[in-house]
Amino acid sequence: MRTSTTALVTLLTDFGTTDWFVGSMKGVLARLAPKTQTIDITHDIPAGNIRSGAFALAASYRFFPKGTIHVAVVDPGIGSDRKAIVVRTTKYYFVGPDNGLISWALKSEVIKAIHSLENKAYFLQCISQTFHGRDIFAPVAAHLARGVPVHKLGPARKNLVRLEWPEPRRMPRGLQAEIVYIDRFGNALTNVDASSFQELGSNRHELFLRGRRLCTVAGFYDAVPRGGPVAVLGSSGFLEVALNRGNAAQELNLHIGDKVTVRHV
Amino acid sequence: MRTSTTALVTLLTDFGTTDWFVGSMKGVLARLAPKTQTIDITHDIPAGNIRSGAFALAASYRFFPKGTIHVAVVDPGIGSDRKAIVVRTTKYYFVGPDNGLISWALKSEVIKAIHSLENKAYFLQCISQTFHGRDIFAPVAAHLARGVPVHKLGPARKNLVRLEWPEPRRMPRGLQAEIVYIDRFGNALTNVDASSFQELGSNRHELFLRGRRLCTVAGFYDAVPRGGPVAVLGSSGFLEVALNRGNAAQELNLHIGDKVTVRHV
Amino acid sequence: MRTSTTALVTLLTDFGTTDWFVGSMKGVLARLAPKTQTIDITHDIPAGNIRSGAFALAASYRFFPKGTIHVAVVDPGIGSDRKAIVVRTTKYYFVGPDNGLISWALKSEVIKAIHSLENKAYFLQCISQTFHGRDIFAPVAAHLARGVPVHKLGPARKNLVRLEWPEPRRMPRGLQAEIVYIDRFGNALTNVDASSFQELGSNRHELFLRGRRLCTVAGFYDAVPRGGPVAVLGSSGFLEVALNRGNAAQELNLHIGDKVTVRHV
Repeated sequence: MRTSTTALVTLLTDFGTTDWFVGSMKGVLARLAPKTQTIDITHDIPAGNIRSGAFALAASYRFFPKGTIHVAVVDPGIGSDRKAIVVRTTKYYFVGPDNGLISWALKSEVIKAIHSLENKAYFLQCISQTFHGRDIFAPVAAHLARGVPVHKLGPARKNLVRLEWPEPRRMPRGLQAEIVYIDRFGNALTNVDASSFQELGSNRHELFLRGRRLCTVAGFYDAVPRGGPVAVLGSSGFLEVALNRGNAAQELNLHIGDKVTVRHV
Repeated sequence: MRTSTTALVTLLTDFGTTDWFVGSMKGVLARLAPKTQTIDITHDIPAGNIRSGAFALAASYRFFPKGTIHVAVVDPGIGSDRKAIVVRTTKYYFVGPDNGLISWALKSEVIKAIHSLENKAYFLQCISQTFHGRDIFAPVAAHLARGVPVHKLGPARKNLVRLEWPEPRRMPRGLQAEIVYIDRFGNALTNVDASSFQELGSNRHELFLRGRRLCTVAGFYDAVPRGGPVAVLGSSGFLEVALNRGNAAQELNLHIGDKVTVRHV
Repeated sequence: MRTSTTALVTLLTDFGTTDWFVGSMKGVLARLAPKTQTIDITHDIPAGNIRSGAFALAASYRFFPKGTIHVAVVDPGIGSDRKAIVVRTTKYYFVGPDNGLISWALKSEVIKAIHSLENKAYFLQCISQTFHGRDIFAPVAAHLARGVPVHKLGPARKNLVRLEWPEPRRMPRGLQAEIVYIDRFGNALTNVDASSFQELGSNRHELFLRGRRLCTVAGFYDAVPRGGPVAVLGSSGFLEVALNRGNAAQELNLHIGDKVTVRHV
């Protein structure tokens, strides 16, 4: 699937960048697979928040070249009996704890193999109880980058833990939706993807929150006056609530989990 | 100007690093130009603050090797009719929205060509309304890195949007200056560059803020006692107000836009 | 020790990532040593906090490949008469100000040579008074990466500034220990390393803070109920106080310098 000279590894974690954790992972990767390029997706997933990590991975993984090894570590259950896994799809590898973190990315992928990470020959020699990112996931990714096939990493499995994705519900004149992610600009991303939205037809639509009209749906932020609220199909493929040149989440008091109604007008 | 094996791309944005935006841009770069090295200048420009982004780019771009492709995206007008441009100088490429962001860096450069980015063959196939960093600027940079000449990217232009630079004003005994940037250490950088300062001659100088003496100008922080204020010609080539081992902006209540007087004593 | 094609440089600073400082250092490295790979350990050491920087470097440097050039810059004394040094050990190079920053990493290393950085041929041509990271340390690292031997960088020295490490003190039924670092998860790392702890024998141990029982020592976080406090031998090789899926420093009001007692029960 790839020669060892071109391997690319991405990292997505909740380790933050104020300590040395990410640096240590990259040290292990550089030691075991010197020709590998490493790209950070983000390390600022809120600590232990599997759903935010799952969303960020699903929104970004597909922009990387075929053969990329995606390592995702948001792992509040470390030290418990949660498994560690590698998933090979037709296009990518995904490595991480089996807690649902990679399941949303897999919704659009064709899975070819799932294996538990159990072969200690591909871990660091000393495994800490608390930092599998450095001791298990980074070395496994390095070995994948060097061409080790997934079946050597541990026994095959039939399934993995999947997070439930909150599908929007059809209603007489639209959709019952939900805010699933708030980004750094304060844009509130809903669970309404492009195809769900297009099924609503070409009428004009508006969003309602707690019974009150929130904003209209438009093609771009500048369709409304500065400071005004607007919903657009955002860059991640989901309908999102934004403030033109402002912070929608703060100004409109939006939170993950808020129910939003999309209605024809 | 460069072979495809050594291309270097820098990224300067206001995307932050808590989401997947920068990671996605790097994924696109790695996909379209695998041998390219990418270096972050910063992604923490305050959201939408074109002047801070322009200053940061101007302060850093010249430390990179000849041929570097500087991609800068602080783009509050995305979705409006602002243009996207590439500028080729004798030493570098600059890619970004045409909103003044790259204009301060260009003050010391010899411009060879300016082109609008309009040739969609060099964009991603699907262009979102809200993330041109990933869909236009990263792919354009990747194609430049692979050797595509700037004239293929769109029509030539004669000029670009330029931000006004607040030149310090000469006064009888010195300069009327202004604070233009505050860095992470709380150092307040003024618009007085080394040559403007040297024109004042070799007398001792002091800084005044709102009519009150702020500090003396010295060669280095430790010229004053710990905790004391001092102005030095900083590493970016501008006179800056610092606190020796302290945070000047916080302690002295300094803000971008504050007028400061530099006077002979 | 290394060919110029495989050099790896790490960066650990207190420069933050909101300005262009780290980007400029990487620009200099890319200009002077184009084939060098640069990895960030962290740039978010609290401004001027040499002890936190020393701890972070000591906790991470050994995960990098042999021959890695570790550049560490937490330099509150810049502009004073502090020296700049390079230390060559049997495995690594360390470059930085001589203020103790690299001394804790050196505790487990065999030092082969220490040199002052005084040969200006290996600096940038213009040296600012305030940014030796860009003007001295990055170019020196680039020249090391290209194979320049350490003795060319300046005169040999016999010693360097060493930070005192707070050794835990033996007590009748255990150890008097101290909190030395608090990480992004709120885990409070003590100065009790694995061998000190193992010398206590295999009894059950508990931690006490200000005379009150804090928690028990266990093998992993999940050994206690969710939200409960626990001490574990952490991934950096030190006994650390954690909250199972919580923030121990915040909830238990722990700070660097707090005295903690480890006792047999």
